[in-house]
Amino acid sequence: MGATGAVGQEFIKVLEQRRFPVASLRLLASARSAGKKLTFRGEALSVEELKENSFKGIELVLGSAGGAIARQFNPIAVAAGAVVVCNTSAFRMDPAVPLVVPEVNPQDIHWHKGIIANPNCSTIIMNVPVWPLHRANPIQRMVVSTYQAVSGAGAKAMAELEQQARDWAAGRPLVKGAMLHQAFFNVFSHNSRIAQNGYNEEENKMVNETRKIFHCPEMRVTATCVRVPVLRAHTEAINLEFSGPMGEQQVRDILSKAPGVRIVDDRGNNYFPMPIDAASGDDVLVGRIRQDASLPGGTGIDLFVSGDQIRKGAALNAVQIAELL
Amino acid sequence: MGATGAVGQEFIKVLEQRRFPVASLRLLASARSAGKKLTFRGEALSVEELKENSFKGIELVLGSAGGAIARQFNPIAVAAGAVVVCNTSAFRMDPAVPLVVPEVNPQDIHWHKGIIANPNCSTIIMNVPVWPLHRANPIQRMVVSTYQAVSGAGAKAMAELEQQARDWAAGRPLVKGAMLHQAFFNVFSHNSRIAQNGYNEEENKMVNETRKIFHCPEMRVTATCVRVPVLRAHTEAINLEFSGPMGEQQVRDILSKAPGVRIVDDRGNNYFPMPIDAASGDDVLVGRIRQDASLPGGTGIDLFVSGDQIRKGAALNAVQIAELL
Repeated sequence: MGATGAVGQEFIKVLEQRRFPVASLRLLASARSAGKKLTFRGEALSVEELKENSFKGIELVLGSAGGAIARQFNPIAVAAGAVVVCNTSAFRMDPAVPLVVPEVNPQDIHWHKGIIANPNCSTIIMNVPVWPLHRANPIQRMVVSTYQAVSGAGAKAMAELEQQARDWAAGRPLVKGAMLHQAFFNVFSHNSRIAQNGYNEEENKMVNETRKIFHCPEMRVTATCVRVPVLRAHTEAINLEFSGPMGEQQVRDILSKAPGVRIVDDRGNNYFPMPIDAASGDDVLVGRIRQDASLPGGTGIDLFVSGDQIRKGAALNAVQIAELL
Repeated sequence: MGATGAVGQEFIKVLEQRRFPVASLRLLASARSAGKKLTFRGEALSVEELKENSFKGIELVLGSAGGAIARQFNPIAVAAGAVVVCNTSAFRMDPAVPLVVPEVNPQDIHWHKGIIANPNCSTIIMNVPVWPLHRANPIQRMVVSTYQAVSGAGAKAMAELEQQARDWAAGRPLVKGAMLHQAFFNVFSHNSRIAQNGYNEEENKMVNETRKIFHCPEMRVTATCVRVPVLRAHTEAINLEFSGPMGEQQVRDILSKAPGVRIVDDRGNNYFPMPIDAASGDDVLVGRIRQDASLPGGTGIDLFVSGDQIRKGAALNAVQIAELL
């Protein structure tokens, strides 16, 4: 559902790369995209219009067509006998719906009632390296700042940033439309709506979804979510305050064994996680691992991480959930 | 001193714009730049090679030619009777040298012995809005993440980012050299050396210089400094932990009267500080003013700020110091 979007197209790629046991694949999208051809395992498949009767005989739905579509069609798909792994925010905070990062809370898939929610991209990329540290030494408070790719705003936003770069190089005026602000040679506070508490929706997702995924409703998190002119990997500066002393070497030891994590932390060569290295990969890159000098007793750690927003932040995580199922 | 660099050229512009009472101006740079012409008040002046005898009759030296040059020539300029406002890091932490942000500690110019240091750019941009808040309610701890323009790495880094954009648009391979990593469509941990404590030099500057400027040697600060593909304004996400409760409205009231600060905080239109708006301006833009939900008792505030690295972060601040003198 949403096959022609940035995440939809990545779903197809990930299913193919991971040899997911697909017997037959149906590509569902809006009427506008119907008839378009997309390739799966060397075969050109036609995109079909998403309709109420689209789910006959379907066992698994991977959804990334936006919240309104999810609210309308997820219950229909479930009624037809499918399990929906939903990449929109529509059902994430529903107490009846598990919210799953396979490296963190795989056990939560067992209590689903037809829908399993895939978390927000920035949340997933933060949770993968932070969870094993939290298990070793409970985290009291997190302060995170993001450097988010435009891919999170969709395929049109990626095309817009690329077009702005071409227009700048040609001396033409820059055009915007998919994004509220110019992305090229700029940085802006995340485009989501500002909620009552002064945080934007993306920041509130990072706070609330982390609490649900970690089963830690009291976890204290503050986040500042920001877009940068990067195409498809999110980077995050994460400050962690632990319950007890936590050394750099202990963090390195834990993260070197953590699933989904790759340490990139070469101080001598000033080589750390970068979105151009994280892009199109499966791992969350983690570096700048250092003791926070501002917290007493060695209870603080700073990290700098980068992960592909479309893959681990969306399509890969959803397919990993489907693999667990 | 260093007239042909990014900051040197901005010095000339700022002196002109602020009608600084210049009787005569000498443009000093390396032998390589000697003979080059730069315009001041409509007059073309020749760049001269910096030599030991360059300071005869000079009252004020504005220096931005790098630490080694400053260490060699600042004492010579002082011996010749000049006061040096030095934009390099060479003398900043010298206990005999004042380190001044005019909006914060103007009184410190009085005890200079010939050299006054201009702080690090990220430090200045953070200190201008944070100082008036600290005066009202002492800050216990700060967590800051930066989104730094490439201008901080010099005019060559700016030209390199622009060339990478042109090369990308033309489908050519991207070339780097002025910067260790590709800046275009990327983000990387600040290029300065990683110190013994795991922080890079830029981060340690933000911590140590803030303590000196604020006369607050116990101030707890942790920083993550990051380069983004932006030409000339630095942006920062700042988390502040106060001694007592600090409300959003109180912060707004204080900052609306603070010198050098302009509040840009339009939640309804999702309009907040952006480097394209801060560039070439004098003010530090401040927005995303909100109560930190992760700290108990309303003692936390989050801010998002942006200021021109070459102006307030360097040339303007130095000329303001000269104006105080």
